[in-house]
Amino acid sequence: MADYSYNQVTPELIEEFKKIVPGKVFTGDEINADYSHDEMPIYGKGAPTVLIEATTTEDISAIVKLCFENSIPVIPRGAGTGLTGASVALHGGVMIDMSKMNKILEYDKENFVVRVEAGVLLNDLAEDAQKQGLLYPPDPGEKFATLGGNVSTNAGGMRAVKYGCTRDYVRAMTVVLPTGEIVKLGATVSKTSTGYSLLNLMIGSEGTLGIITELTLKLIPAPKETISLIIPYENLEDCIATVPKFFMEHLQPQAIEFMEKEIVLASERYLGKSVFPQQLEGVDIGAYLLVTFDGEDMESLEEITEKAAEVVLEAGAIDVLVADTPAKKKDAWAARSSFLEAIEAETKLLDECDVVVPVNQIASYLTFVKSLESNYDFTIKSFGHAGDGNLHIYACANDMDEAEFKKQVADFMDIIYKKAAECGGLISGEHGIGYGKMDYLAAFAGETSMRLMKGIKEVFDPKMILNPGKICYKL
Amino acid sequence: MADYSYNQVTPELIEEFKKIVPGKVFTGDEINADYSHDEMPIYGKGAPTVLIEATTTEDISAIVKLCFENSIPVIPRGAGTGLTGASVALHGGVMIDMSKMNKILEYDKENFVVRVEAGVLLNDLAEDAQKQGLLYPPDPGEKFATLGGNVSTNAGGMRAVKYGCTRDYVRAMTVVLPTGEIVKLGATVSKTSTGYSLLNLMIGSEGTLGIITELTLKLIPAPKETISLIIPYENLEDCIATVPKFFMEHLQPQAIEFMEKEIVLASERYLGKSVFPQQLEGVDIGAYLLVTFDGEDMESLEEITEKAAEVVLEAGAIDVLVADTPAKKKDAWAARSSFLEAIEAETKLLDECDVVVPVNQIASYLTFVKSLESNYDFTIKSFGHAGDGNLHIYACANDMDEAEFKKQVADFMDIIYKKAAECGGLISGEHGIGYGKMDYLAAFAGETSMRLMKGIKEVFDPKMILNPGKICYKL
Repeated sequence: MADYSYNQVTPELIEEFKKIVPGKVFTGDEINADYSHDEMPIYGKGAPTVLIEATTTEDISAIVKLCFENSIPVIPRGAGTGLTGASVALHGGVMIDMSKMNKILEYDKENFVVRVEAGVLLNDLAEDAQKQGLLYPPDPGEKFATLGGNVSTNAGGMRAVKYGCTRDYVRAMTVVLPTGEIVKLGATVSKTSTGYSLLNLMIGSEGTLGIITELTLKLIPAPKETISLIIPYENLEDCIATVPKFFMEHLQPQAIEFMEKEIVLASERYLGKSVFPQQLEGVDIGAYLLVTFDGEDMESLEEITEKAAEVVLEAGAIDVLVADTPAKKKDAWAARSSFLEAIEAETKLLDECDVVVPVNQIASYLTFVKSLESNYDFTIKSFGHAGDGNLHIYACANDMDEAEFKKQVADFMDIIYKKAAECGGLISGEHGIGYGKMDYLAAFAGETSMRLMKGIKEVFDPKMILNPGKICYKL
Repeated sequence: MADYSYNQVTPELIEEFKKIVPGKVFTGDEINADYSHDEMPIYGKGAPTVLIEATTTEDISAIVKLCFENSIPVIPRGAGTGLTGASVALHGGVMIDMSKMNKILEYDKENFVVRVEAGVLLNDLAEDAQKQGLLYPPDPGEKFATLGGNVSTNAGGMRAVKYGCTRDYVRAMTVVLPTGEIVKLGATVSKTSTGYSLLNLMIGSEGTLGIITELTLKLIPAPKETISLIIPYENLEDCIATVPKFFMEHLQPQAIEFMEKEIVLASERYLGKSVFPQQLEGVDIGAYLLVTFDGEDMESLEEITEKAAEVVLEAGAIDVLVADTPAKKKDAWAARSSFLEAIEAETKLLDECDVVVPVNQIASYLTFVKSLESNYDFTIKSFGHAGDGNLHIYACANDMDEAEFKKQVADFMDIIYKKAAECGGLISGEHGIGYGKMDYLAAFAGETSMRLMKGIKEVFDPKMILNPGKICYKL
């Protein structure tokens, strides 16, 4: 590993920044403490020396060039909703707040794309596209992340089972490289075999290879109708076993989420609203599927619903509750969307993982994870995307010493990451590596792949100034 | 640029190879002349010193290690159906014929994937999957390419408009790196945010970053029915203008191909069969769309067909001919699939490009290309994927001197590649860069992107032995 060192940001340099973006440069007490951490405070341990609100690609380029010349770390930050510390300024330096570049620039309805600044929030694009009769299919749980952040982690979300992940919707991007150079990658086309895919390399690179400033994203015509089903089961095994049957029957759900009883109860405490039945026909419910179908008209959706009901009831579901009005659908999905907040609201110490395993391994994997609970002083809560094997597993504690919590969690994570690999899965489905998961990535990927990743990082960032100490390169 | 030099393959080294893969090592006259070129003979200008039939990942690893130690070029070759010289041994060395690793290893019907050796032909997987009730959606025109070759060019094909490209169906792969190390990338999951996507970097890298030996590919349940429409128009402009309307009406065609009259006539001469009408209602037909829809039952397909007919007739189509029997569908698509062979059969000198432009630019782009024809002594024929803007443009000559042909084609390509970029398109939709298109890639991508690509190549291949002189690195 090469030796990299950084310089302090000097007052002269701050003056230079102010000349480039007057009124957008902040230091010291002007910087809110929120900029020292993301949504997972356990990974918060560094504040930037300077915070700059992003304005244009050209301004960012000028700022990064100065940082490159002076060996100053640069950390791009979206809305700070990450869960692995990827946007934390571990080595100080200049943080660029991308959430200020938040304009939806242009819809191209003939080619079904939209051009946006990278700081646009997912929720804002989703709502705006809907008004145009269009759908931006990626639907990560956190609606108030920036699209640049979504691309940087290849965020997946609820609808990945039918529509794929963020990667599948990125047609083109403008990037400021660690040298300050600006490159445009991709085009408004769906096919490409035009050299190494720098576009795909940038996707999921968590702000370590370049700062994404503008995106051209694919849209699709919005399905006219949706219908959601709440499907209760006695236990998680029965619940998960149903999942492949949806596909074999060509039912094409837009989303299939699973949730265990405990997390549903936490959500109901948080929202003060009960949506999911807890007992049915004398049976205690242990787990649920929440399934959504989309289509062109209610008639065909009702047909699909009937077929789906037949399939799941035969496979052990206790009942099928149809959410066919806007209010019912909203309640069911609001419950699902509040899981993380519900956990946060009643938990002092929190860590999580978002492994992804083959769909037919979910049940046995979760049974294994649950079996570990008695070894630790924290509790384990889980939910996730049953259609694609992406599991969110939370270690939660209220009465533990932080150091002890971290120690026990490290042990727990080590075991469950290894198990995920044994099951043919991966370390992270959508949250990324940041710096919180670096050791697990290294153990999983192996020396050769890590050498390649480090080599790629060095090619893009010869002075190691961009978001240093993340993914593959410890500093 | 660093200085790389290669050693000759010595008799001793050949003996070493023979120890690793007895009976699979060929030299001199034992090597068929076909191994000196791909499907585009104009890019054939190098023969390997040694040809080795691939057996296992481990054997390839052992062979590549020897080549790495001895600085011998290694060139992986699939079925040799490429169109840019990507598999030509420009610097001699060892060619590894991957088409001999052609076993379909295992279907996993719960996770909807199949594991194959990289030398399996697309056609073989397509037919075998169909027998299992499954569909491998990518459908490049050349059915007798290897799947490893498809992945190496991110092949697109007919069904990309609905189902995406090869990239979207690669879940995992085993790769032998230029150092001989074996890495496994990806997993049987659809979501990932697990470090830089080496998997996606490998896809489309045309055998320059590693030798793909095994693939885990995504399958989908096979649609139960398909129906095809032949839609004749007076001219290409009207024809192309219809295309976005299919999407706005949510009709989701599986494929939309356009073809000009001249290429249809060539195909009919080649096949001795007339499928497409040449005059209708007193109007001379100038262009056609060939559209396929898929679905669960004929009833819903007939509804879609009716709606599609309404839309296109209103937009200027002369008629809509329905191919709803297996024989009619086969004839229509056989005509489309024979275009390249039909051109080859009546052409002595041939070069091509496969630019991709935004869908709403196809008509004006092709009008521009056609307007250049009078400047040259060759004729221009075109067809392509109207749904995704991927155009196949052929320069064809029978009475030209080869040097003069190459000179004129270089001039022509230079102009049309520049125009594609101006239209917001890319150099290649699916054929790749190989060595035939390197100058055009360099001009299009620009210095910075090319520096990054070269840097990546150096990280993977420090001695520059794997498929040297392709994509980004001239030697």
